[in-house]
Amino acid sequence: MAVNSCHYFLHSQFATLSPPSVASTRRLSSPSRNRITCTATPASSSSSMEEGRRKLMEFPYVSAPVRDLMVELISTAENRLESQLLPCTLPLDVQYYENPTGNSQASLQIRRGLDSSPIDFILGCWIHSKLPTGGDLNITTLLGYMNSFTDAPNCLIEIIQPSPTSVIIILDLPPRKDPVLYPDYLHTFYESTQLDTYRLKIEKIPEAKPFISASLHVRSLLSPTKIMFSVETEAGDSARMEEIVRSHLIPVFKDVLGIWLNQCACGVREVGETEKAYLKKRDGLIRTKSIEMDLESSFPTLFGPEVASRVISEIRKVLKG
Amino acid sequence: MAVNSCHYFLHSQFATLSPPSVASTRRLSSPSRNRITCTATPASSSSSMEEGRRKLMEFPYVSAPVRDLMVELISTAENRLESQLLPCTLPLDVQYYENPTGNSQASLQIRRGLDSSPIDFILGCWIHSKLPTGGDLNITTLLGYMNSFTDAPNCLIEIIQPSPTSVIIILDLPPRKDPVLYPDYLHTFYESTQLDTYRLKIEKIPEAKPFISASLHVRSLLSPTKIMFSVETEAGDSARMEEIVRSHLIPVFKDVLGIWLNQCACGVREVGETEKAYLKKRDGLIRTKSIEMDLESSFPTLFGPEVASRVISEIRKVLKG
Repeated sequence: MAVNSCHYFLHSQFATLSPPSVASTRRLSSPSRNRITCTATPASSSSSMEEGRRKLMEFPYVSAPVRDLMVELISTAENRLESQLLPCTLPLDVQYYENPTGNSQASLQIRRGLDSSPIDFILGCWIHSKLPTGGDLNITTLLGYMNSFTDAPNCLIEIIQPSPTSVIIILDLPPRKDPVLYPDYLHTFYESTQLDTYRLKIEKIPEAKPFISASLHVRSLLSPTKIMFSVETEAGDSARMEEIVRSHLIPVFKDVLGIWLNQCACGVREVGETEKAYLKKRDGLIRTKSIEMDLESSFPTLFGPEVASRVISEIRKVLKG
Repeated sequence: MAVNSCHYFLHSQFATLSPPSVASTRRLSSPSRNRITCTATPASSSSSMEEGRRKLMEFPYVSAPVRDLMVELISTAENRLESQLLPCTLPLDVQYYENPTGNSQASLQIRRGLDSSPIDFILGCWIHSKLPTGGDLNITTLLGYMNSFTDAPNCLIEIIQPSPTSVIIILDLPPRKDPVLYPDYLHTFYESTQLDTYRLKIEKIPEAKPFISASLHVRSLLSPTKIMFSVETEAGDSARMEEIVRSHLIPVFKDVLGIWLNQCACGVREVGETEKAYLKKRDGLIRTKSIEMDLESSFPTLFGPEVASRVISEIRKVLKG
């Protein structure tokens, strides 16, 4: 079920939604784009930031070990990159949103990089939706996107958890240059970092099976060391799944994020004007295609046209720089 | 065993060797490069061509269904492209060669395209070697490489059969442009041809498991619809393997070769001067890397330095155009 029902979200590196804290849901309803509007609780800029981040970090629809992992990854990235990042300035009704019937919710935080930083933005989000076919869609995502002052790879982390006994993991540093045309690039970021050893560790988990995106575009933009697996334990054996997440997934996710932080986000790369134009073009194609494929094709169904339009508009601004 | 012992040959799209017909092995020993030299049977140009092709088509170390498949694929490609191809002009001692102790043998045929053709060359080969670790290395290959007057994908077919109950298959149309930077290219050759349906057919075979090359370079140059699987039946059940080859593999290999012949080898694509330069550069990088990784790293071990040098020199000439 998971693979088929989720596959369009796996195009979806930008899939973004977040559930309300079950006990205290606030309804954010204004369609306006650029003003922060909240029908329940008007918030100061500072408190809305805190509230949005708090909602993200709840990750309320995934299991405790997955939540702990995502919280740790986002905190690690923020702590390391704090001096390079601006606060999240998304409208409140894009930081948290849901569909009119309340069966789809999402939380989204985006922090742009300072002008002096090679980081374009860091995005954290979760989506929860009760699917009409039965079952839940639960996606948690952390993205780190670089700008065209560097050619260093991006960071893509996604964990999809349709049930307590199954997860789909996507962990990759997608290259920003064609690895065939730039063999030194392949060597620097993928061979000498020994990224493939982490894929091999996950491959050894008896319950792990390679996961292949249905989208050829997504397959093309991922790296040769991409870690994409579905992991499913026997029905009811959520304890084994928790053990897999804690003992096997968490160390690998932390190490790969560490490689990205050290070698990419905080590394220094000289990029000439021609290369900048190449990076802008290639990045731009990926981003445009991702908006078309992921957001425009699925968000109206999940959230209704009005909410989808509001959220996509904000994400488009960030992706277009 | 197969995966580990073969992995460097799977970089090896150019791995080339061919065994003698078991009953009537002729030893070809001269180190000369450009003359046809044969210590056993001097041959006219025409008869040496026939003899070289005959030896290739024997595929004597693989099972009958694999041999039948390779013979049919090569015959189909030759028949369809006959009017575009020159005869094989390799020296006899490169068309067939072996190492001094006789435990590694190989057969190789290369037919270049006419100047008016978009085909650069077609290569067919097999390699057999008794490995020092025990077991056999048996590789059969068919390559179709395009020249820079077209951007159409190449064709890569490789079947590795370490034993009667196991095969590794590689079937792909490797792209010649970055599919991320050229989304129309991805659509034309990979989406609209529905190539992924063939991968899905193989994936459904219960004994098939995804096979991943150890080389990040190889992973990078293959397409998003690449068909790479190892198939292993229970010990002793070679009948089941034969059934798999005949019922599942043969139809898929024939259809994918058909797509390449129709859409790539015989298709018409307009390519401007800038694009030609891009293709030459990208193709050149792949070819150089393949010579370094595959031939120079493994051939001296398998065939001894003298034979390796002779064969690599001829292959290098073809690859460099």
